[in-house]
Amino acid sequence: MRLATLITGAGDGPGGFATRAAVQAGDRFIMLGARDLNELLESPDWREQAAAAASAALPGGFIPVSAARFAAPLPRPGKVICCGLNYADHIQEMGRELPEYPTLFAKYADTLIGDDETIDLTGHGAKVDWEAELAVVVGAPLRNATEAEAAASIAGYTAANDISLRDWQNRTLQWFQGKAFDRSTPLGPVLVTPEECDPEAGVRVRCLVNGVEVQNGNTKTLVFSAAALLAYISTFTRLRPGDVVLTGTPGGVGMGAVPPRYLNDGDVVTTEIEGIGRLTNPVKF
Amino acid sequence: MRLATLITGAGDGPGGFATRAAVQAGDRFIMLGARDLNELLESPDWREQAAAAASAALPGGFIPVSAARFAAPLPRPGKVICCGLNYADHIQEMGRELPEYPTLFAKYADTLIGDDETIDLTGHGAKVDWEAELAVVVGAPLRNATEAEAAASIAGYTAANDISLRDWQNRTLQWFQGKAFDRSTPLGPVLVTPEECDPEAGVRVRCLVNGVEVQNGNTKTLVFSAAALLAYISTFTRLRPGDVVLTGTPGGVGMGAVPPRYLNDGDVVTTEIEGIGRLTNPVKF
Repeated sequence: MRLATLITGAGDGPGGFATRAAVQAGDRFIMLGARDLNELLESPDWREQAAAAASAALPGGFIPVSAARFAAPLPRPGKVICCGLNYADHIQEMGRELPEYPTLFAKYADTLIGDDETIDLTGHGAKVDWEAELAVVVGAPLRNATEAEAAASIAGYTAANDISLRDWQNRTLQWFQGKAFDRSTPLGPVLVTPEECDPEAGVRVRCLVNGVEVQNGNTKTLVFSAAALLAYISTFTRLRPGDVVLTGTPGGVGMGAVPPRYLNDGDVVTTEIEGIGRLTNPVKF
Repeated sequence: MRLATLITGAGDGPGGFATRAAVQAGDRFIMLGARDLNELLESPDWREQAAAAASAALPGGFIPVSAARFAAPLPRPGKVICCGLNYADHIQEMGRELPEYPTLFAKYADTLIGDDETIDLTGHGAKVDWEAELAVVVGAPLRNATEAEAAASIAGYTAANDISLRDWQNRTLQWFQGKAFDRSTPLGPVLVTPEECDPEAGVRVRCLVNGVEVQNGNTKTLVFSAAALLAYISTFTRLRPGDVVLTGTPGGVGMGAVPPRYLNDGDVVTTEIEGIGRLTNPVKF
């Protein structure tokens, strides 16, 4: 299944939108009762609800895929946890060794934006870098989970870009402040359930700046798989349906270039994951 | 004013409690309508509400201070942001230089517990350390705030202990995983409003293990004041009423001792801040 949080008009949600959860059926998105995928995933029978809606579309309750406007699919996760240094090639370009444990840091939901929204970092545009990432979304409560339990809990996958202000990130030893600017992390466009997306078999993760490819990695080179990350995190903190974990970025970030290169005002960042889709976000400094 | 979130019985709140917000009037806590201080602080007129209740106690609506059981005063903050390396003496014991920028990392609300609750780290008790800290609580929305605006927004102060699993903290470059174990961060017992607590003039921050003092610092040596931290954080992310910022710990942590010393199963950690009160938390490994 392909699920989304669609923008239905102006409203009081994040970004000033009203939204509805939806499930894709062919060339249509069928509207669901929940206002977004966070609300949908809170129902333990969310898979059955969505599958039933996809197979029994009613007139008036859908919009064409071509007319869809995507909010961040999970606009209100309680936890957004990120893994750094998880692709062998990116680890090497940053000059580090393959890790024994995942390097983790936290974001808040305020960082998230959807497809087409502007990454507005006015006044802070000195060293803004891209990090295209596969994001895994939790579909059931997890605490002290085995990797098999974690794998079974996965709601699905989406694309993210962990846009990073390298000047802020490197002001101190802790990366958080360079990764936590409000409305700087594109997420989406859709959530694809595991039967249609298998990162361990390998899906391509690309980033383009103004249409020129800058990152092209494959999730089969992940040091820690999505399930391994969820199991590890659940050792110290409870994960709930709708929580989001970013699995790290492949090689090709601007900071790793010689000389380093960063985004400029007006650039357009495209984040593309095979089988999921593409996020297009202009930057404004 | 002295405000608290009191445990009123069993319930479905964090820790399995039912709670009510309350304000102290002499030797009584007067019950308020809100279930906790997070709900109270969401009302823009929370100061007036609490002051009115404190001055007009009705029979039946109070309990003696001596009978109060304290939940974490803010049990559900959207953001819990921590500053490391903020006391000159602690910075020196860790072998670092005085910083130009605050070192920040994030926690989630799931880490918080109240006075008297057990720090249960069963299976993870190898290198568990104490970090007594003054916590500042946000009382009004803040974004791109000046230091004066940040100061005016402060709801008050409380005590915290940023209990740290040094083995997990030092597995990678990012401290998050050693600081984010669920139910490991005592907070409370009460929230004291700024007219009764002035950290810039100096309040004593102490930690005791089994009654023996291990930390004794004073907030007048903070490199970044509470208001400076809120203003800085608000540059990158929105702060909302009820959000909590931990201001860092003074010298005397176990990791800084020669040789290092850590908590043992059954130890009791006391966190005490002058003018606020004392948290007593047993540890269980």
